[in-house]
Amino acid sequence: MTNRTLTVGLLGFGTVGTGVVRLLREHADEIASRLGATLIVGPVAVRDPQRVRDIPVARLTSDPAEVVDDPGVDIVVEVMGGVDPARTLIERALKSGKSVVTANKELVATVGFELADLADENHAWLEYEAAVAGGIPIIKPLRESLAGDRVRRILGILNGTTNYILTKMTEEGVDFAEALAEAQRLGFAEADPAADVDGADAASKLAILASLAFDSRIVAGDVFRDGITGVTATDIAHARRMGYVIKLLGIAESSNGDVGVRVHPALVPREHPLASVRESFNAIFVEAEAVGDLMFYGRGAGSLPTASAVVGDVVDVARGVLSGERPVNSLRRHGKTVRPMEDLTVQFYVLLDVADEAGVLAGVASTFGDHDVSIKSVWQEGHGDSAQLLLITHAARDGDLQRTLQDLRRLSSVRDVASVMRVEGGEA
Amino acid sequence: MTNRTLTVGLLGFGTVGTGVVRLLREHADEIASRLGATLIVGPVAVRDPQRVRDIPVARLTSDPAEVVDDPGVDIVVEVMGGVDPARTLIERALKSGKSVVTANKELVATVGFELADLADENHAWLEYEAAVAGGIPIIKPLRESLAGDRVRRILGILNGTTNYILTKMTEEGVDFAEALAEAQRLGFAEADPAADVDGADAASKLAILASLAFDSRIVAGDVFRDGITGVTATDIAHARRMGYVIKLLGIAESSNGDVGVRVHPALVPREHPLASVRESFNAIFVEAEAVGDLMFYGRGAGSLPTASAVVGDVVDVARGVLSGERPVNSLRRHGKTVRPMEDLTVQFYVLLDVADEAGVLAGVASTFGDHDVSIKSVWQEGHGDSAQLLLITHAARDGDLQRTLQDLRRLSSVRDVASVMRVEGGEA
Repeated sequence: MTNRTLTVGLLGFGTVGTGVVRLLREHADEIASRLGATLIVGPVAVRDPQRVRDIPVARLTSDPAEVVDDPGVDIVVEVMGGVDPARTLIERALKSGKSVVTANKELVATVGFELADLADENHAWLEYEAAVAGGIPIIKPLRESLAGDRVRRILGILNGTTNYILTKMTEEGVDFAEALAEAQRLGFAEADPAADVDGADAASKLAILASLAFDSRIVAGDVFRDGITGVTATDIAHARRMGYVIKLLGIAESSNGDVGVRVHPALVPREHPLASVRESFNAIFVEAEAVGDLMFYGRGAGSLPTASAVVGDVVDVARGVLSGERPVNSLRRHGKTVRPMEDLTVQFYVLLDVADEAGVLAGVASTFGDHDVSIKSVWQEGHGDSAQLLLITHAARDGDLQRTLQDLRRLSSVRDVASVMRVEGGEA
Repeated sequence: MTNRTLTVGLLGFGTVGTGVVRLLREHADEIASRLGATLIVGPVAVRDPQRVRDIPVARLTSDPAEVVDDPGVDIVVEVMGGVDPARTLIERALKSGKSVVTANKELVATVGFELADLADENHAWLEYEAAVAGGIPIIKPLRESLAGDRVRRILGILNGTTNYILTKMTEEGVDFAEALAEAQRLGFAEADPAADVDGADAASKLAILASLAFDSRIVAGDVFRDGITGVTATDIAHARRMGYVIKLLGIAESSNGDVGVRVHPALVPREHPLASVRESFNAIFVEAEAVGDLMFYGRGAGSLPTASAVVGDVVDVARGVLSGERPVNSLRRHGKTVRPMEDLTVQFYVLLDVADEAGVLAGVASTFGDHDVSIKSVWQEGHGDSAQLLLITHAARDGDLQRTLQDLRRLSSVRDVASVMRVEGGEA
């Protein structure tokens, strides 16, 4: 059996692609022994085949058709990123019966369902472990290990750049701009950090997780999102004094047949396992009916961590191809609908700049009461121009809180709504 | 496809078995939709079929042959525990072509290799996710997700009872006996806690993990072990002041073609992700070449968490059976040998009761030097009869440290070697 070979072609040869080829080579013996077959690196499509590479490969081409149309290629690894032309190329590969492994979260979070169906029609495999949280095994555990359980909620730190920035802000007391600049200097943030800091990257990953956890069709566009650009050093200091840390969370939860999906900064109790996930690490906390709480922790990005997940998928797909087993990729669609953000029930932290005068609290409290938002605790801070009210609510409808804020802004005693943030993961 | 059915028979109907039947029933619809087939609960073998059960089943029998020999049973779930007669029954089931899911760590850690070979010979599946760390998915991630990577080291909190006891000792300052009594009162420890507190339970789980991670045949008897009965409130207090917490760790590591496997209490830096694993939770920290650090966290025991893992395996096996795929269960044997404890390189914490006189430190230090054990830091504590020396060494051969301790006991200025513990997970 060990004389069988399978050929792996690559679309893209950047940091992840280079890592994939390195692992396929350096771990070739172990992989061959685990698989009972040898994996060979075939054609690699790149933008500029003339550029000198750290890792040489036999066949570099500028024409991706030479990968997806080559009858000698068994498995296509797509690590070019972006929806187009990755989508068209993967479709072509699947239609010719090739199996595909992709690390492309944006693609899977938008057209993953269509691609999975196409893979099934063509008896091909489609896997994408690396698309969510890089090297952390989470797709397979959700889809297979928890197949006999029922997921209630997922809380994820799904973006390493923003977790790095928030860690610096928390541990060094610096503000957002300074922490971002440091992250950029050290290579943890890109020159244009928008997709990270505005939550779009985390939203794509969350859509994929929610689809698997809740057997439903959730795409990136379904996810409510709010980034971390508005988080201030003051918020972090207040949170800390109350026993919380601030994290950018992706949250997917199921209730009454609906699914809520959202990405936003949140106060997390210091004792919660997610609170100690520092620097650029990712973690996914899963609450399921039978198993209770699980957490999966590791590197969410980087050349080798991501390549480790891609090659794990390649070995898995190769096993399937060799066994002759009929692939089942298509995601189940139980028709759970996405519940609008305003109908979700959430706990809030609200920071108000207020006038330093008698009766302020009474006016504020009755405004919350008008909208059925119940206050759990209140602190009064500072005096004169720096007088502030800091409130934590009980769980309330998001829509009711938004209306409360509108009314608060109209109160003469409230100078400004300085901060609003959701609170997750239980009591501090 | 959804009109296909598979029948699941059970050996054992205690807390885990009851949980398995509950999940198979309550999640029947989701499972059927995920699998494209219906799972039916068949015969259940118990010691006393007359006893009233919380969860009724159609066929209770006192004769396990009615499960393993019944041609109508497709998958046998073994949740009776112990090596015999579980082994014989599973062998009979496999020989008749039935697939088996077991939660039996003791069995898998002693004869898992033989059972896997037997399963392969009979084209049957054998899975055991629940045998290690209860509900935490770790077998599948190690075997499949990391198939393209190379594991260097595993550090695991693999026993909930001892982690609960150490958490109470750490957070409430109580001693071992008191924490154990509380654990027994609350049901976290058994009336006879020996297998937990002496590390035997963790050693079985570690042997299974090490076999998978290092493609080698490691059985429970290969694992060096030391329990937590010798851990004192003083050790915990000293550790805390130096920035460490004490955990019972299972450690498997590969170097130079050998594998080291050991279970013992260890000082872990407070910042290490394992340090914040509290109460009866388990966690497995994996260091791999490409992916870097991963951690898997969750409930290591309990009826429903363990049942979640068993039913996940049942669904997985059912998928395999339905697909007609040829099972590959046999574990790879790359012939890595187990390195004796004395040849492993470890960092140590040593606490000495010493005479309160000049020259003590010089004598102690030269004894360490005689055996090539280099001291990293020393604290002198107390006076007169309570004078102590507290040392942390650099990494040294375990055998050299043991010889150092022998010589230290002979020094007139050393009244007693009060504590010796290994230090893991890097610098505090």
